[in-house]
Amino acid sequence: MASHAPTPAYRRLRVEERRSQLLDTALRLFAQHPPEDVSLDDVAVAAGVSRPLVYRYFPGGKQQLYEAALRSAADELKQCFDEPLEGPRIPRLVRVLDRYLAFVDEHDIGFSALLQGGSVVETSRTTSIVDGVRRAAVEQILRHLPVVEPGLRLRMTVRMWITAVEAASLIWLDEGKQPSLDDLRNWLVDQFTAVLGVTAAHDPQTAVMLEALMADGDADTAAVEPPSLS
Amino acid sequence: MASHAPTPAYRRLRVEERRSQLLDTALRLFAQHPPEDVSLDDVAVAAGVSRPLVYRYFPGGKQQLYEAALRSAADELKQCFDEPLEGPRIPRLVRVLDRYLAFVDEHDIGFSALLQGGSVVETSRTTSIVDGVRRAAVEQILRHLPVVEPGLRLRMTVRMWITAVEAASLIWLDEGKQPSLDDLRNWLVDQFTAVLGVTAAHDPQTAVMLEALMADGDADTAAVEPPSLS
Repeated sequence: MASHAPTPAYRRLRVEERRSQLLDTALRLFAQHPPEDVSLDDVAVAAGVSRPLVYRYFPGGKQQLYEAALRSAADELKQCFDEPLEGPRIPRLVRVLDRYLAFVDEHDIGFSALLQGGSVVETSRTTSIVDGVRRAAVEQILRHLPVVEPGLRLRMTVRMWITAVEAASLIWLDEGKQPSLDDLRNWLVDQFTAVLGVTAAHDPQTAVMLEALMADGDADTAAVEPPSLS
Repeated sequence: MASHAPTPAYRRLRVEERRSQLLDTALRLFAQHPPEDVSLDDVAVAAGVSRPLVYRYFPGGKQQLYEAALRSAADELKQCFDEPLEGPRIPRLVRVLDRYLAFVDEHDIGFSALLQGGSVVETSRTTSIVDGVRRAAVEQILRHLPVVEPGLRLRMTVRMWITAVEAASLIWLDEGKQPSLDDLRNWLVDQFTAVLGVTAAHDPQTAVMLEALMADGDADTAAVEPPSLS
């Protein structure tokens, strides 16, 4: 046993790397096959390790590994939404979308797997892991918008747009990653301002907010195509 | 046994009614509780029948009942999309949306249950029951639009909007059915023309299609508020 005990710091790093490798492998397998068809043996073989080693990291077996893999992907995805509350807002949205779409591009099938756990939006009745990601996305967007207490229509609009972004990501993967990421991102930003424009026509709060949003972006949105509604 | 054999016509009707009652009861229970927490006994009690009777209708037990309940709701939902290819197109969309939203309003929790089986859009990798509903919705919309071979961007736009409608329905239920059904329907129609407008700015096919769509609706859309993009 003594020969298996390297220095603590070295050992901890290896443990985290191994755990991360097993999670990535599991996410890929769970993405390609229904959970009931994936065995711990499959994960061990795909990761090039022994079955006991997988059990050492995930003593709860497949269910624990499955949930940990989804949680790991969800956490990483949520980090994409972190953006300082500084500077023009549309470029902030562009940066968040770029990180999000890069995650989608990189994780591909694993991203689809993550999203298969829940319904189309987070509601008070659903509790899946992906709902936490959706809630985080909505909260982040609302935090950045120039509005203090977003009302029903504005919140609904943001939630619907988040869903449309998620749909766009899955369709984009499904369509062989067309159009280009830049095109997709600009398209989504334009859709955001367009649906806000629709809501603004019936909701004074959204109208005031949208005017502020568009004005604040004027100076620094050269990288983004002008929204189609302006 | 002879006393249990009424005339065939009478018996068949009773069988279908009973089956339908059991499906409705099951859908409600599966909507309120995770499938693993619902027993056939619960369904029997809620429907006011004996456990053996539930088994007579669903010999495959809970899984069969669960899938049959979802399929029944999905079939009913798909029927909402049937609309003759006649008359101005926006009013057709209004009628379809009205039927769809009436289904959402009536089925409430059962509607949420139906949608919890899949990811956010139908893709080539997903096979859940709700995906069949989404595919039907997209196909019906594309069939009604003035375009012969819809390209990638137009198809993506329609799929994203269908997802946004689904999200809106779930949020609407979650928010205590606010705003009114009329407001919600007009809002969704306006969003449809707005996102088509965004796509049209980058996609000639969608631009031509949208112009035809807006022109054809001019004569007969008094019941719908003017789309915000026009």
